[in-house]
Amino acid sequence: MTRIDDLPIRDELRGKSPYGAPQLDVPVRLNTNENPYPLPEELVRRIGERVTEAARELNRYPDRDAVELRTELAAYLSRTAGLPVTVDNVWAANGSNEIIQQLLQTFAGPGRTAIGFEPSYSMHALISRGTGTGWISGPRHDDFTIDVEAAERTIAELEPDVVFVCSPNNPTGTAVDKDTVLRLYDAALAAKPCVVIVDEAYGEFSHQPSLLPLLEGRPTMVLTRTMSKAFGAAGLRLGYMAADPAVVDAVQLVRLPYHLSSVTQATALAALEHTDTLLRYVERLKSERDRIVAELTALGCEVTASDANFVQFGRFDDAHAMWQRLLRHGVLVRDNDVPGFLRVTAGTPEENDAFLEAVRASLKERDA
Amino acid sequence: MTRIDDLPIRDELRGKSPYGAPQLDVPVRLNTNENPYPLPEELVRRIGERVTEAARELNRYPDRDAVELRTELAAYLSRTAGLPVTVDNVWAANGSNEIIQQLLQTFAGPGRTAIGFEPSYSMHALISRGTGTGWISGPRHDDFTIDVEAAERTIAELEPDVVFVCSPNNPTGTAVDKDTVLRLYDAALAAKPCVVIVDEAYGEFSHQPSLLPLLEGRPTMVLTRTMSKAFGAAGLRLGYMAADPAVVDAVQLVRLPYHLSSVTQATALAALEHTDTLLRYVERLKSERDRIVAELTALGCEVTASDANFVQFGRFDDAHAMWQRLLRHGVLVRDNDVPGFLRVTAGTPEENDAFLEAVRASLKERDA
Repeated sequence: MTRIDDLPIRDELRGKSPYGAPQLDVPVRLNTNENPYPLPEELVRRIGERVTEAARELNRYPDRDAVELRTELAAYLSRTAGLPVTVDNVWAANGSNEIIQQLLQTFAGPGRTAIGFEPSYSMHALISRGTGTGWISGPRHDDFTIDVEAAERTIAELEPDVVFVCSPNNPTGTAVDKDTVLRLYDAALAAKPCVVIVDEAYGEFSHQPSLLPLLEGRPTMVLTRTMSKAFGAAGLRLGYMAADPAVVDAVQLVRLPYHLSSVTQATALAALEHTDTLLRYVERLKSERDRIVAELTALGCEVTASDANFVQFGRFDDAHAMWQRLLRHGVLVRDNDVPGFLRVTAGTPEENDAFLEAVRASLKERDA
Repeated sequence: MTRIDDLPIRDELRGKSPYGAPQLDVPVRLNTNENPYPLPEELVRRIGERVTEAARELNRYPDRDAVELRTELAAYLSRTAGLPVTVDNVWAANGSNEIIQQLLQTFAGPGRTAIGFEPSYSMHALISRGTGTGWISGPRHDDFTIDVEAAERTIAELEPDVVFVCSPNNPTGTAVDKDTVLRLYDAALAAKPCVVIVDEAYGEFSHQPSLLPLLEGRPTMVLTRTMSKAFGAAGLRLGYMAADPAVVDAVQLVRLPYHLSSVTQATALAALEHTDTLLRYVERLKSERDRIVAELTALGCEVTASDANFVQFGRFDDAHAMWQRLLRHGVLVRDNDVPGFLRVTAGTPEENDAFLEAVRASLKERDA
């Protein structure tokens, strides 16, 4: 039998494992930041209609430029994120992961570097590796906010080609304030041209407004978003970015032609028709998130300020042992290898009750 | 206004243009090798059903490993391509372009090289460039068959890490015989471990059986396929590969997690339920393709032997002038920059009649 190591894979891939949370069969799964609310039946029917219509022309290639979808995404951002943008500012792909991959292929890659402030969304580092981009792990304070002074020094010294700012940050949950983003941007562009990617995958859940308005007058700043979380459509794989039209033009040089299927475009368009309903679910999740923060704090946990649909909590001498205790109580949360901390996704009120009950019981067991 | 050249894009992208055929509004479009037959209405309805079902769980991530879909693709290959394969041998992605990108990220990339025999499917070279892989253009004879002796010498000298064999070859149309593939494989592996990718995007249209059985005992040979052509589903973007299970494991190290949406998986599964109907369309297209070859030959054209759903024809002193003449007659074909030749996709009988009539008229104009 042939094993991976018998194959001529790239040296830097040897001994690595694929990204992915364990998918365990557990009553309460709060480990992958999915939206717990199924799409409303009216939207499900509308998806069926639009996809059926698209299927009648499935023998033809999809609209390579996804113009209708990008127009609607631009309208959504214009209405909700504080800056008017048009189809020319927006680009869409199969998940924000593919957007990030296209950006790194265009602006980073072999001989270039990207910096992110860890712990952060681990795909930033993984996609960097996958595109041959050198990875720099930037500094955070003990409370998981970015250490801006240290970051400025690191950027000045190492002159990265791409800077990732994840806001709200995953897995810690806290949004990055505007001034911090601008200081990082100024530091990055002081030395040489640099692309600053603001990953707002969880932007709709934040206490602060979107960072989108920062794009004005900054042609190398890019904002990425996803329909996975706020639109309750993790299964759809629809990520997008807003940027200067020249950035949108530039990624055309590396995007795979016809990358976005007709059925994906049709489904995303149907979901965008139901934006207001879906954003009401976001409001529910935000208040559940705030409740989880309050109740975990009351239980004596150290809770990282959250602007997302998840909460990082600790501090445990042995976080993995606590993860296992919660699992025994039927609740799956995420161990992101942040020492002392675990991450829980805000679920339905019932799921969150079950989680909080499991924490109570697990803390008692630990202290027994 | 910011232009691409003002941005810090990679040097090798400067001055390049994105891949893509012109999408012109013309009565008869035979330029992108699409299947001219819309999916049967029964299948369209079934897609609507399966996607509606998938949409009810769209808030959850898709099956990251696409197990049901890979199982059905394996069953299809086992039944039609001459070698029994299982789910462990098969991997699927958003178009065979994404499969090829994943293979190059795993087995090629910076500091490594890939060879293809040009003219061939131009995305092989473009995705190589996009993944930082050095590109080697291998030799063909004047009749567009691979010059095997010269290829063996080039491979021995340059020791590529990946060899592309496109069979049937696009844009020339001819399938590659088994012995040629084996000689290239042996040459490639003589020097060092090497991955040989047999691109059978048009495999179902060939006069010869699939090259799939060659995979047996050759763990670094990979066969890629697509549902775009034979399954009449260019809009679906579903490509797949068959290979040793170790190769499938290896691409997990670079694949973007959850790359394949629930709606794509549901639509592909619906189409696979209707395989027999769709393969009857393939038979119709094969006989139309053979008719086009015969009639073009009768008109005095030089026609490259075709095993695909398209035909390369010439030889024109000025192929682009002929392309323009055909366009004036309302027929859009493809100018792939193969000197002296154009490529036409087999359409419906009516479309093909219109094309042949346009050729007759254009030849007269040229010779007037």
